[in-house]
Amino acid sequence: MTRLAVVCGTTHTAGIEGISAAGASPDLMARTPAADAEILVYGRPAGSITPVSPTGCPTPAIVTRAARERLGFDPLIVDAGMAAATAAPTVSVGDRPGGDVREGAAVPNARRVFERAREFGSRLPDEELWIGETIPGGTTTAMAVLRALGEDWGVSSSLPDNPVALKRRVVREGLAASGLDGGTSDPLAAIEAVGDPVLAGVVGLVAGTVGTDARVTLAGGTQLLAAAACVRGLGIDAPLALATTSFVAHDTPAIRERARALECSLTVTDPRFSETHVAMERYLAGEAKEGVGMGGALALFAREGGEWERLHDRIEAVYDRCA
Amino acid sequence: MTRLAVVCGTTHTAGIEGISAAGASPDLMARTPAADAEILVYGRPAGSITPVSPTGCPTPAIVTRAARERLGFDPLIVDAGMAAATAAPTVSVGDRPGGDVREGAAVPNARRVFERAREFGSRLPDEELWIGETIPGGTTTAMAVLRALGEDWGVSSSLPDNPVALKRRVVREGLAASGLDGGTSDPLAAIEAVGDPVLAGVVGLVAGTVGTDARVTLAGGTQLLAAAACVRGLGIDAPLALATTSFVAHDTPAIRERARALECSLTVTDPRFSETHVAMERYLAGEAKEGVGMGGALALFAREGGEWERLHDRIEAVYDRCA
Repeated sequence: MTRLAVVCGTTHTAGIEGISAAGASPDLMARTPAADAEILVYGRPAGSITPVSPTGCPTPAIVTRAARERLGFDPLIVDAGMAAATAAPTVSVGDRPGGDVREGAAVPNARRVFERAREFGSRLPDEELWIGETIPGGTTTAMAVLRALGEDWGVSSSLPDNPVALKRRVVREGLAASGLDGGTSDPLAAIEAVGDPVLAGVVGLVAGTVGTDARVTLAGGTQLLAAAACVRGLGIDAPLALATTSFVAHDTPAIRERARALECSLTVTDPRFSETHVAMERYLAGEAKEGVGMGGALALFAREGGEWERLHDRIEAVYDRCA
Repeated sequence: MTRLAVVCGTTHTAGIEGISAAGASPDLMARTPAADAEILVYGRPAGSITPVSPTGCPTPAIVTRAARERLGFDPLIVDAGMAAATAAPTVSVGDRPGGDVREGAAVPNARRVFERAREFGSRLPDEELWIGETIPGGTTTAMAVLRALGEDWGVSSSLPDNPVALKRRVVREGLAASGLDGGTSDPLAAIEAVGDPVLAGVVGLVAGTVGTDARVTLAGGTQLLAAAACVRGLGIDAPLALATTSFVAHDTPAIRERARALECSLTVTDPRFSETHVAMERYLAGEAKEGVGMGGALALFAREGGEWERLHDRIEAVYDRCA
């Protein structure tokens, strides 16, 4: 059986002005993971909001849901620490949002989240497990964890103009506040200091599947690559795959070489979006790029030989339903 | 979209010797709802057990899951108060098992469970909602609630020989302990005194869908009919349907007349089980009869024009996978 797990959480890092495009306001940002989970499970939000960026880019949850409606794979919402309650059914591995990485000690319960996710992952009976994420601000915490682990490379952004200078400053402050300027070889120490609860959950899930029959694919962009770096840093050499969108691969070409270095087989899928509908047009303009397992959902759709036009039609239908 | 919600919970009433066939021991009984949820969601238990009665009848979750694998409807696990944790994703509306009804005040948090389920139900965006249950001992608590509401009629049992005398004694003790010998017209007072958390959750879910677009079908036997009686007792006159198995209708013929009296349209489905496999044979011998939404899953299968032999094959496959 094929399952797409989406690990959901919140980090106060997203509240830093200019960091994230997810949600149009701090309040919407906090509710974005909850709404994403509902869209994936129910086909529309079961609260009041559909996350839309300030410039009108709808959440990638719409794309993932559209692929799900075409393919029928099962979703699994893993709550690693959401600020707002979701009406979607969840498996909980965490109980609080992450802090602002500039203050250090951003995920004090990182080891507990990791352990709970690992235990849960070890019980999953699926043959094929795809793992995505939704956490506004997550590319910044991913960058911080990579820096802490000594990997210096760019990360993607949900904004058309990646606020790299801002992210670098935030990361630098976080590493200094955590006393990790010199780096660490312990991925969990890095997540604890400057990561986010979703990273702890994703890494735990992957660790849990070691020894099971599940083939694991990380479904997403640089946040999932950061998770892969943590997995390798833990000494886990099980096969790993990464599936992302052409939007991420275009924005962050280094992802190909980094995936290779981490022994992750990489699949990049171009969904052939057109400018005919806002739900696709903003991606062509460089927004969003990834999230909520979108890269994995697209890879599954391509693998099943789906026609892109049919996916586009369904994306429009889900968008209209969510509006 | 079509969704099957299964409201899961535990009542210490199930621990009374001879009351329930679900699970072969008190420990297994406590873990039955958790395992049922896993079988429905994952296709096999994600813990260690598959619930099997002392005489070898496997849980009806296997039948419901088999129908799901043929039809593709979405499951929704609602935790109204389970004694054991499940690895299935859940929406939680309760936080503790119900007590032994003989002691009265069996569900002190019944109104809170009802309210949470109602709030959740009001947010569900499904066009079609089927609601089933899994709670060992639930036919006894259903009988107690019906008695408290002044309805005196038989209930079904998961055992081939329904321990009616035992149930009546348990119910009588519960009503006496609660001071409800004279009955009550308040369904929530009845559930609070001698019901179980699953009844509170089911009734809340149904109440929550009033005013939404959802068509609601109660998927199960006399426990769901007891829920319908509570819904009507609350003054809710929205359309309601009940879908159950031929095994229940055969065991409790009065269900037809009672459904009519409660203005529930009744669908009875005979899955044409054969004696070729234990997963079906024990039902023909009068065991289990219903549960985990089985009657609803069968009705959906029949509505879609499914061939029974294909369902039988799938039941065997799920059974073998769970064994």
